[in-house]
Amino acid sequence: MKMHNFNSGPSILPREVLQEAAEAIYNFDTVGLSILEIGHRTEWFIHVIEEAKSLVKELLGLDDNFEVLFLHGGATTQFMQVPMNFLEASKGAAYCVNGIWGKKAITEAKLFGPVTIAGSSAGKNYTFIPKDVSIPENSSYLHFTSNNTVEGTQWHHFPKTDVPLVSDMSSDIFSRKMDFSTCSLIYAGAQKNVGIAGTTLVIIRKDFLEHKNAGIPAIMDYKNHIDGGSLLNTPPVFAIYVSLLTLRWIKKEGGLAEMEKRSLERSTFFYEALDQLPLFLPTVAKEDRSRMNAVFTIEDKGLENKFLEACTENGMVGIKGHRSIGGLRVSMYNALPMESLELLVKLMEQFSHQYTS
Amino acid sequence: MKMHNFNSGPSILPREVLQEAAEAIYNFDTVGLSILEIGHRTEWFIHVIEEAKSLVKELLGLDDNFEVLFLHGGATTQFMQVPMNFLEASKGAAYCVNGIWGKKAITEAKLFGPVTIAGSSAGKNYTFIPKDVSIPENSSYLHFTSNNTVEGTQWHHFPKTDVPLVSDMSSDIFSRKMDFSTCSLIYAGAQKNVGIAGTTLVIIRKDFLEHKNAGIPAIMDYKNHIDGGSLLNTPPVFAIYVSLLTLRWIKKEGGLAEMEKRSLERSTFFYEALDQLPLFLPTVAKEDRSRMNAVFTIEDKGLENKFLEACTENGMVGIKGHRSIGGLRVSMYNALPMESLELLVKLMEQFSHQYTS
Repeated sequence: MKMHNFNSGPSILPREVLQEAAEAIYNFDTVGLSILEIGHRTEWFIHVIEEAKSLVKELLGLDDNFEVLFLHGGATTQFMQVPMNFLEASKGAAYCVNGIWGKKAITEAKLFGPVTIAGSSAGKNYTFIPKDVSIPENSSYLHFTSNNTVEGTQWHHFPKTDVPLVSDMSSDIFSRKMDFSTCSLIYAGAQKNVGIAGTTLVIIRKDFLEHKNAGIPAIMDYKNHIDGGSLLNTPPVFAIYVSLLTLRWIKKEGGLAEMEKRSLERSTFFYEALDQLPLFLPTVAKEDRSRMNAVFTIEDKGLENKFLEACTENGMVGIKGHRSIGGLRVSMYNALPMESLELLVKLMEQFSHQYTS
Repeated sequence: MKMHNFNSGPSILPREVLQEAAEAIYNFDTVGLSILEIGHRTEWFIHVIEEAKSLVKELLGLDDNFEVLFLHGGATTQFMQVPMNFLEASKGAAYCVNGIWGKKAITEAKLFGPVTIAGSSAGKNYTFIPKDVSIPENSSYLHFTSNNTVEGTQWHHFPKTDVPLVSDMSSDIFSRKMDFSTCSLIYAGAQKNVGIAGTTLVIIRKDFLEHKNAGIPAIMDYKNHIDGGSLLNTPPVFAIYVSLLTLRWIKKEGGLAEMEKRSLERSTFFYEALDQLPLFLPTVAKEDRSRMNAVFTIEDKGLENKFLEACTENGMVGIKGHRSIGGLRVSMYNALPMESLELLVKLMEQFSHQYTS
């Protein structure tokens, strides 16, 4: 049975990326060694990481004012690493709280200095994006989560502010065109749109680095990683290689313009279907709906479980909502074929027909 | 040309591990998804990580007094994470310095409290293991590096002490039988004997955890990772899977007894040859020679480069010494076939014959 992968992350990858990744395990780039066995300071791997860094900048339209790193540790490490490097205790930092990940980021930031909540939708279960942000003028930075994977909301424009903007783009990077140069720091766990679990992309404006705190553990200091060419310690070689393959694929398919076009097609198609099937209840403000993760429920929890069983029977995986909020979630990342969504919508229609009186 | 891989890490893996890893990218365990695409909270992956944790304990002969974690970040992160969790500022910690990695570990520890040097070979370029350790009685712990990958020395017995023992076993874990239960914490980057770059194995005695510091960033707190079943955040799924395949291979081949036997055969064979070829100069104390990494030089640097060229021409990679000390290094990890070593020794003999007057 062909599987349809709606996982929220780790998630679906382009078929050709999987093919190339598997081939490189047998023999990497005809060097006679597996990608799993090559040294990270060899010319071979230096080419991999340099091409990956360069493609990140090219695809996002960033110039040499930005540095690109592929780090260990996942975005959760960034929750700590960002304030450790950039939260000046005398100034504090501002955080928009639009979901559980943003909330976790605040808990870490508070270990390093005062935090101002610049906007929050916590009172309404994070079902909308609070757009009017109020930020103390001299904040070290404003942190926000551009797409809320768990709740299914998304900032469709970056917040407007004069303080440095720090964006957790883990679940929507490389899915749309934005003016990324307005951000001072962007981070993203790779396992949604840019590879597999095991590496985190970090992009930093060079002038922001001048505000970095001193006395940071070596491995947490962004400046050290930049000076070490993203090779401060042994990097996650294979994870970075899969990111390179994914970046090449994005470029070949037409870059962010094409990714955005497909993402709009997928999400429009899915939300239109959702709005026409009263059995399924969307949970977030319409204007803030995520193009990456559609979150909804069925009121009758018995029926919701039955629907999940029907998904499993039809080879559709990853539709169960995040364990913190339950419900249903359909993730529609760059590599998801329309065919998978069409089959899912067909199943939803059949199910709806069967169980709506 | 068949390649012979003497890399110090990332390093050679068993052929069947590579084969199985590549196959799992096409289709993992017949679930119809790639190992690169499965969710980390699925039953499938829970089985992977639980089997890996259980095999670690079985192979090392550890009971349920120990917890096993597979973390992000590499051993360098542990240089910081160990003192962050366990260095009590009022007590300080003791460190044996037998190589550049141990020295780096101290730099990080000092950020969290006072450090006593319990023994050091820094004055002699780390060419021996200082065995008489002198430790303040109430130290939080004694940290040592069991094998020095760069310099080619190894502790053939664990240091004797009453304070909790913390061991960086990145480059010799799973290569020999020891009483691992005398350690309170063991950590090891996976990319030598237990998989690929991208995950770090951490083993902690439960009673040691009771001494953990408070107020630690969530992602750095070992207790959080244990409570989260090594799934606190999205783990490096594929890297952990390769560790599982490697652990299965070690068990199937005969466990640590067999790994030790092979390691002794390899290192004895190589050092005997080295001692008979006066062109090549071993650099460390004979009694402290590492069974994992043999480090040596040729006095004439022009000839040393010529030898490296001859290695390359013969498909032998990874023999150049670490950039911090230069020279030559031959790494002989678990997966290295005797055939590779035999061919290397033959080349050394020919070279020696040609250039020794």
